[in-house]
Amino acid sequence: MKAEIISTGTELLLGQITDTNSPYLAAELPLLGIDLYWITHVGDNQPRIVEALKRAWERSDIIITTGGLGPTEGDITREAIAELMGEPLKIDREILEGLRSMFSKRGVEMPQRNIKQAHIIPSARAIPNAVGTAPGWWVEHEGKIILALPGPPWEMQRMWLNEIKPRLEPKLSGEVIISRIIKTAGIPEAKLDEMVSPLLSSTNPTLALYAKMDGIQLRLTAKARKRAKAEELIAQAESRLKAILGQAIWGFDEDALEVLTGNMLRERKLSLATMESCTGGLLASTITDVPGSSDYFKGGLVAYSARAKAAFGVDAKLLAQKGTVDPEVAAAMAKAARLRLEADIGIGVTGVAGPAEIEGKPVGTVYIAIDGGDSKKSSFSALYPPRRPLVKRQAVVSALFKLRQLLLSW
Amino acid sequence: MKAEIISTGTELLLGQITDTNSPYLAAELPLLGIDLYWITHVGDNQPRIVEALKRAWERSDIIITTGGLGPTEGDITREAIAELMGEPLKIDREILEGLRSMFSKRGVEMPQRNIKQAHIIPSARAIPNAVGTAPGWWVEHEGKIILALPGPPWEMQRMWLNEIKPRLEPKLSGEVIISRIIKTAGIPEAKLDEMVSPLLSSTNPTLALYAKMDGIQLRLTAKARKRAKAEELIAQAESRLKAILGQAIWGFDEDALEVLTGNMLRERKLSLATMESCTGGLLASTITDVPGSSDYFKGGLVAYSARAKAAFGVDAKLLAQKGTVDPEVAAAMAKAARLRLEADIGIGVTGVAGPAEIEGKPVGTVYIAIDGGDSKKSSFSALYPPRRPLVKRQAVVSALFKLRQLLLSW
Repeated sequence: MKAEIISTGTELLLGQITDTNSPYLAAELPLLGIDLYWITHVGDNQPRIVEALKRAWERSDIIITTGGLGPTEGDITREAIAELMGEPLKIDREILEGLRSMFSKRGVEMPQRNIKQAHIIPSARAIPNAVGTAPGWWVEHEGKIILALPGPPWEMQRMWLNEIKPRLEPKLSGEVIISRIIKTAGIPEAKLDEMVSPLLSSTNPTLALYAKMDGIQLRLTAKARKRAKAEELIAQAESRLKAILGQAIWGFDEDALEVLTGNMLRERKLSLATMESCTGGLLASTITDVPGSSDYFKGGLVAYSARAKAAFGVDAKLLAQKGTVDPEVAAAMAKAARLRLEADIGIGVTGVAGPAEIEGKPVGTVYIAIDGGDSKKSSFSALYPPRRPLVKRQAVVSALFKLRQLLLSW
Repeated sequence: MKAEIISTGTELLLGQITDTNSPYLAAELPLLGIDLYWITHVGDNQPRIVEALKRAWERSDIIITTGGLGPTEGDITREAIAELMGEPLKIDREILEGLRSMFSKRGVEMPQRNIKQAHIIPSARAIPNAVGTAPGWWVEHEGKIILALPGPPWEMQRMWLNEIKPRLEPKLSGEVIISRIIKTAGIPEAKLDEMVSPLLSSTNPTLALYAKMDGIQLRLTAKARKRAKAEELIAQAESRLKAILGQAIWGFDEDALEVLTGNMLRERKLSLATMESCTGGLLASTITDVPGSSDYFKGGLVAYSARAKAAFGVDAKLLAQKGTVDPEVAAAMAKAARLRLEADIGIGVTGVAGPAEIEGKPVGTVYIAIDGGDSKKSSFSALYPPRRPLVKRQAVVSALFKLRQLLLSW
C-alpha cells in the first residue's frame, strides 16, 4: 500500500516550527508494511490543500493529513477534504455533545467557534481525541483512505497509536518492512560504495549509504509478508556485509561510540582519562554523556595553552621544541593524563580547530594519541574540513574510534 | 516570487532523520521577500524526484532542492535535474580539478566515484562548497531558477549564506520581511508577556515570545516595500523594548552567551578556568566553541570523582564532610580551578546529571560557584528537569549567565 503525508500549517512554511509529525508517522508506517512515497508541507490555504489532496488521491492509497482541525478560521482541513470529496459539511450532534461535555468537565462553556469542530461529511467517521478538542477523521471511499489527524504531536501520536493503528492493521496486506543500520568507520564513502556495490543492486533487501558524523552508515531494508522472512533477508545481507567489511563495522542501529567504548572499558575493568586541547572538553563531555560513565572515567584535563599543558605534566622542553600542535605532544598529553588521573588509559588530543592556523599548521590538523602504558599505545593524525565545530566533533569521534581499536586487541 | 523546496532522501521517508534544511530555508526566504508555498519530501528515486521537479517548475519561480549531490549511486539530484531540463550531463574539468585538489590536500587520492560530482549540465553553474565535496548547482532557464544544495546542514547553510543569498538578492523585488530576535534572561515568561503586552497587539512589526534554553526570546518581525523602512519599524519597537526590559536583555539575533561572556572577559583583560563534575566538560567545550577563546580561557578540569576533585586541589576534608554534590564543594572547585590554572576567575559546577540520585540529592540538582577572588564571588543552585542531557545543558547556560552577571559589575 502506498501512503502519502500532507502536513498543513503556514508556520511550517515560515520555518517557525519544525514538523515532527511526519518523521514520527514515517517511522511508524513501514512497521505496517505501508510504503511512504511523499511528504508535502502546505500552508493554511484551501485551494493549495485541495490541490495536494487531489494529487495524493491520484497516486496513493492512504492519505494522512496532520493539522488544521482546530477551531480557528485558519483550520480548514475539514473544508478541504469536503471539497475534494464533493460532500457537504454537516454538524454531527454526537460530536457536538462530546465537545460540550469536554468543556463542561473543564468547568467552562464551549466557545461558539468550537462548533466548527463538530462538522463532518457523510463518508467520514469521527475519531475520538482523548487529549484535545479536535476529533480526527477517517474517510473511506473507492478503496482509498484519508486519515485527518490533529497537529499537536501528543494528540496526533495518541490518536495514531490508540485509534488509527489498530483499525488500520486488519486492512493491510500484512507485508512487513524491517530496517537494519550497520555503522562503519575508516573506509571513505565512495570506497565503501564500491566495496558493497554487489548488494546495491538488490531490491529486497535494499541497501543505502549515509555519511554521518560517526562514520558511514549502511541501511538494509527488507520487505516480506512475514516478519520472520524479512528478518531472514536482513540477516543474510548483514552476514555478507560483515564478510566484506569485517572490523570496519563498529555498531548497529542505535549504537553510539561513547556507549560502545564505555562498555568495553567496563568489561575489561579499565579506567580512562583525557587531556584535550583543540576539542576543549568535548571529548570528556561526550564520554560523560553516558549514564554510569563515572565507573570508568577518572576525569579530564582541558589544556588550552602550552602553560596549562605543562602544568598538567607535559614536558615543558618538548613543548618548547615542538610547539603545542604536534604528534609527540599528543602522546605526552595522553601519558600525562593517564598518570595524573591514575587511569589505565589516557587520551591526548591536540590540533587546530580554527579559524586561524597555529604554528604553521592548517586549520583542521588534529593529532590524537592513546596511552595504555607499555606497548599499548596508538596515535593518529588527520586533516578535517576547516570548520571549527566540525573539527571538534570529528576529532572526538576519531579519538573514540582509536580507543575502540586499542580495546579490541587489549 | 514563489519558491518551493524539494528535500530528497529516502531516510526522510523512513523517519530516520528529521529534515532541518527546510525549516532553515523557510525562515530565510521571507527575509528576501520570497513566498514559500510548498515543501516536498521525496525519496532517492529518480522518476519521483523528476515528477516533483516538473510540478514545481509549473507552479514556482524558484526551486530549491537539498540532498542527493553526494558521490554514491543513491545521489541522483543531478541526474533528475538533467532529465527535467532535457540536457546531457558532462564532466566539468574545473570542478574535477577542484575535487582532486581537495582530496590531495587531505592527503588521499580521489575515489573514482567522486567523478560523479564533477558532472554538470549546460544551463547549470557550479556553486563552490567550502566545507564538502559536493558542489551545488545554480540553474537558470526561462526566468526560473533551480538551486541544488547539498544535504548536510552545515554545508547547505554555508552555501546558502555565502554563495546563494548574495547572488539571489539583486534579482528580487517586492516586500521585504525582517526579523529581530531579542534575548532576555531572569524574567519569567508570563511576567515578560505582561511587561511587553502594549507591543503584542502591534501588527507591523509583530512581536512573539519563545521560551528557549538560554532564556525567553522576543521576536520582532516587520514587513515593508523597502528594507530601510522595515529596519526603521524594527528599530522603533526595539528601543521601546529596551526601555521596558533594560538589563534583562542580554543579546540579539545570533548572539550566544559563550561569545558574549568571552568578549566581556577580553575587554576586561580577565582570564577564566573551570572545574566541572556533572557537566563533564560541556562547560569548557562550550566556552572553547568560540574562536579566539584561548585569549582568555586558561583551561578546564573535569573532576568526575571525589578523588579527582581532591587531586585538583579541593580540600579532601571538605569532600569527606559534605560529599561531592554540595554548594561549598562547588565554591572550593571554583577557587581551586582559579588557583590551579592561574586564572582571574574560576567556575565550579557540581550536581546530579542522573539517571540515579547521588548522596540523597535528586537528579537535576546543580550547584554552581564563581570565584573572582576577594569579594568577587557568586553562587547559584538549581533543580532542573531530571533528564541527563538537559541537566548538562541547563547547568552550562546558568554558569554562563552567572559569569555575565559577575562581569557586568566587575
